[in-house]
Amino acid sequence: MDKNSDMYSQHISQQFNNELEEIKNQLLSMGGLVEKQVSDAMRALIDADSGLAKEVRRKDDDINQMELHIDEECTRILARRQPAAIDLRLVLACSKAATDLERVGDEAAKIARHAIKLTEEGEAPRGYIETRHIGSRVRRMIQDALTAFARFDPELAFRVAQEDKSVDLEYKTAMRELVTFMMEDPRSITRVLNIIWVLRSLERIGDHARNIAEHVIYLVKGQDVRYIGLKRMKEEVLKDS
Amino acid sequence: MDKNSDMYSQHISQQFNNELEEIKNQLLSMGGLVEKQVSDAMRALIDADSGLAKEVRRKDDDINQMELHIDEECTRILARRQPAAIDLRLVLACSKAATDLERVGDEAAKIARHAIKLTEEGEAPRGYIETRHIGSRVRRMIQDALTAFARFDPELAFRVAQEDKSVDLEYKTAMRELVTFMMEDPRSITRVLNIIWVLRSLERIGDHARNIAEHVIYLVKGQDVRYIGLKRMKEEVLKDS
Repeated sequence: MDKNSDMYSQHISQQFNNELEEIKNQLLSMGGLVEKQVSDAMRALIDADSGLAKEVRRKDDDINQMELHIDEECTRILARRQPAAIDLRLVLACSKAATDLERVGDEAAKIARHAIKLTEEGEAPRGYIETRHIGSRVRRMIQDALTAFARFDPELAFRVAQEDKSVDLEYKTAMRELVTFMMEDPRSITRVLNIIWVLRSLERIGDHARNIAEHVIYLVKGQDVRYIGLKRMKEEVLKDS
Repeated sequence: MDKNSDMYSQHISQQFNNELEEIKNQLLSMGGLVEKQVSDAMRALIDADSGLAKEVRRKDDDINQMELHIDEECTRILARRQPAAIDLRLVLACSKAATDLERVGDEAAKIARHAIKLTEEGEAPRGYIETRHIGSRVRRMIQDALTAFARFDPELAFRVAQEDKSVDLEYKTAMRELVTFMMEDPRSITRVLNIIWVLRSLERIGDHARNIAEHVIYLVKGQDVRYIGLKRMKEEVLKDS
């Protein structure tokens, strides 16, 4: 290869690397925004702040637009760059993680909707402590899943998947208590149901964080670890790739 | 081009077409299985048939495996065939639709779980008629979304998206009635909650059918119609592509 064409192909490949880096950065900033939406929605709920809740609902469309934009970029890279191996996995993982983040944004908007209802109907008599606790845990899961993505860290990703299982248990306990409470105090049903829907949304957010973590493992290890259970997932993560 | 190399490239492109056809067929048979899962889960609920409900739960992993398989095939085609234009959109739409179908399978398994609980806790005093009605509508939506995929029919896909909006309204009405009923008869709370969770799952299934319909419109028209509202979606569908 003569020097000019070598420089040309280096130039192309540098540009391609920049594009990949750019799409990853877009995903991470979408993640930051989504994480803030969850945090604001929870704060609106705890502080009965309907103004903040309305802001969360307004911002949901920004997140939708970010998903569309990332997805378009991914398709453009697939069509023009025809990536292979880890580059291809990065593009696919970005596209899938963007879908999960968009759904997390939807759940944050739903939490905000119930926060607004609770300011109208009056505070629920129970469930705030559990909800706040599960809320912090799933926010942390989102943060960790994104850090794992940023650092290509499958071990951190695995810990997110582990955490999801433990959050599910806490969710079930909280739900049982709220149902028992409703039976003892039927006048509280509509208000407690709002908290129940919030809990359900938080549990879904945990699932999406786990999905993102699984995309990271796929991206780094080249192995699809969905549906194989935590034990086998751990083996795949510890395996040399 | 000499005759041999021409035959060779025709052979390659025929093989590629076969691969695309094959992945589309796999998606459609996955769809058929998922649709049967929803239908069996609903039958298990209405007939209080816990044997059938358990079968639905057992079969969920087959659906997960089908998703993994379709996704692997899609990645393989992207890496080896480097498809462009409508071929690329077909591969991406198959991969995304497979994710939605897998989630519909999850919801069918959840419905089956509540069907089992209701055989243990005793029938719910209300909600079966509404649930059965919404159940038929979302099953029909899944069928139509798959038919639209099979026929590359964006107009049928649009009707699925339209139907989703009307199902959401029926869902909200049914929910309100069930909440009112629980307040009047608190002893029924746990049983009615099972029906409420089933309704929520059906509503989610409707959302996934709409997602699949949107993938079809993207595939045929090359236009991403998520988040633009039904009015603009209709314009895109009717536009010459």
